[in-house]
Amino acid sequence: MIYELYYWPGLQGRGEFVRLALEEAAAPYKDLALVPEAKGGGVRALQRLLCDKALEHPPFAPPFLRAGRELIGQTANILLFLGDRLGLAPRAPAGARWAHQLQLTIADLVAEAHDTHHPVGSGLYYKEQRREAKRRSKEFRESRMPKYFAYFERVMRSNRSAGAWMVGSRLSYVDLSMAQVIAGLRYAFPLASRRALRACPRLRALHDDVFGRPRIERYVASGRRLAFNEDGIFRRYPELDG
Amino acid sequence: MIYELYYWPGLQGRGEFVRLALEEAAAPYKDLALVPEAKGGGVRALQRLLCDKALEHPPFAPPFLRAGRELIGQTANILLFLGDRLGLAPRAPAGARWAHQLQLTIADLVAEAHDTHHPVGSGLYYKEQRREAKRRSKEFRESRMPKYFAYFERVMRSNRSAGAWMVGSRLSYVDLSMAQVIAGLRYAFPLASRRALRACPRLRALHDDVFGRPRIERYVASGRRLAFNEDGIFRRYPELDG
Repeated sequence: MIYELYYWPGLQGRGEFVRLALEEAAAPYKDLALVPEAKGGGVRALQRLLCDKALEHPPFAPPFLRAGRELIGQTANILLFLGDRLGLAPRAPAGARWAHQLQLTIADLVAEAHDTHHPVGSGLYYKEQRREAKRRSKEFRESRMPKYFAYFERVMRSNRSAGAWMVGSRLSYVDLSMAQVIAGLRYAFPLASRRALRACPRLRALHDDVFGRPRIERYVASGRRLAFNEDGIFRRYPELDG
Repeated sequence: MIYELYYWPGLQGRGEFVRLALEEAAAPYKDLALVPEAKGGGVRALQRLLCDKALEHPPFAPPFLRAGRELIGQTANILLFLGDRLGLAPRAPAGARWAHQLQLTIADLVAEAHDTHHPVGSGLYYKEQRREAKRRSKEFRESRMPKYFAYFERVMRSNRSAGAWMVGSRLSYVDLSMAQVIAGLRYAFPLASRRALRACPRLRALHDDVFGRPRIERYVASGRRLAFNEDGIFRRYPELDG
């Protein structure tokens, strides 16, 4: 089966968490964001599905994944599905639940990272909420990001299995997502993330382990992985770092 | 087995989504928020677990549920588990995934409702971010809440099964959570929620159906269900409605 991934073109965003899982598993997939509109891809493909009144299970927002006849939305839900299908999560139910719990906590961190530049609302431009963004970013830099990092470092320390992964003894989609968040926060907050990661040697190593994996390296070098930019979740606005 | 629910005492919060599922299924559970600290409950019970260095699977934040030897965190993850155990979700994997996808979208709405009064950060008091709260609430009232309600109304309309539930033909934990969100938003935004719900007859009926169920009625009358208040997610600050 060839999976179809639907996401906004031009940014990594939440779609990237799904892409990393598909790439690491070498799963065949079509990334509709990379397909021109004239050939049935791009924003038009997204909006066709978002507005399709005939869909029984309409998604609220991208990303969503077509897998056979199923259309699956919500990033963590997609990864729960793919983790099982692609061998990127523990097989035992309790282990799969623990991985999913961590992914949902990563999703909370991602939402908070997004809201540093959009604290008033996603319907307004950044420049319309710059003042609020400065206050929210200060809270994020000084309190939230360090708290999340300390938690995930503790999770790695508490993992009793051999190896250097977050869940059990094998790489899971949680590791891929965690590495992606670290990369994103380093892009958005170079100063504050370095400070916050000082006490987190396991997370720093995890980032390097993930981005050093052969398939992930090939994906990054392929040109298909976009650079971080100021349309995505992780944006570099120097006035928000410090 | 007797489930143990851990959550902050004195507010409904995210714990209430779990309580409604346990109550509807008449599952035996101990609500640690209702147990005095001297008897091993309350905030101290929470903090003991949050700080327990010996835990292999530490939760990031409440609510969390003890089920036998497992400690499960993240509201939607708890409901995914309980939905299967208590018969409050479809048995077929695709149906269970669809229910979970909706629950995660409800979780996004809940987070946005929370941030109307805490747009800068949960570490500051409301009165320290009142100006930002007014702007964020305007966005929420005029754009986000109507968008979510229209989506969930569409989900109900698209459900091809007989009955008036969100997923398939039987009540699921998604219905319980949706009704709770409607109740919460009616409390927090009496004017704006009434406007937004005008075009949503199915959601209004769903709310009444859920809170008219015998076990939910008994639970509400028991005194165990706290009233909404200004410590919770849904807070009535008249200056934020309109």
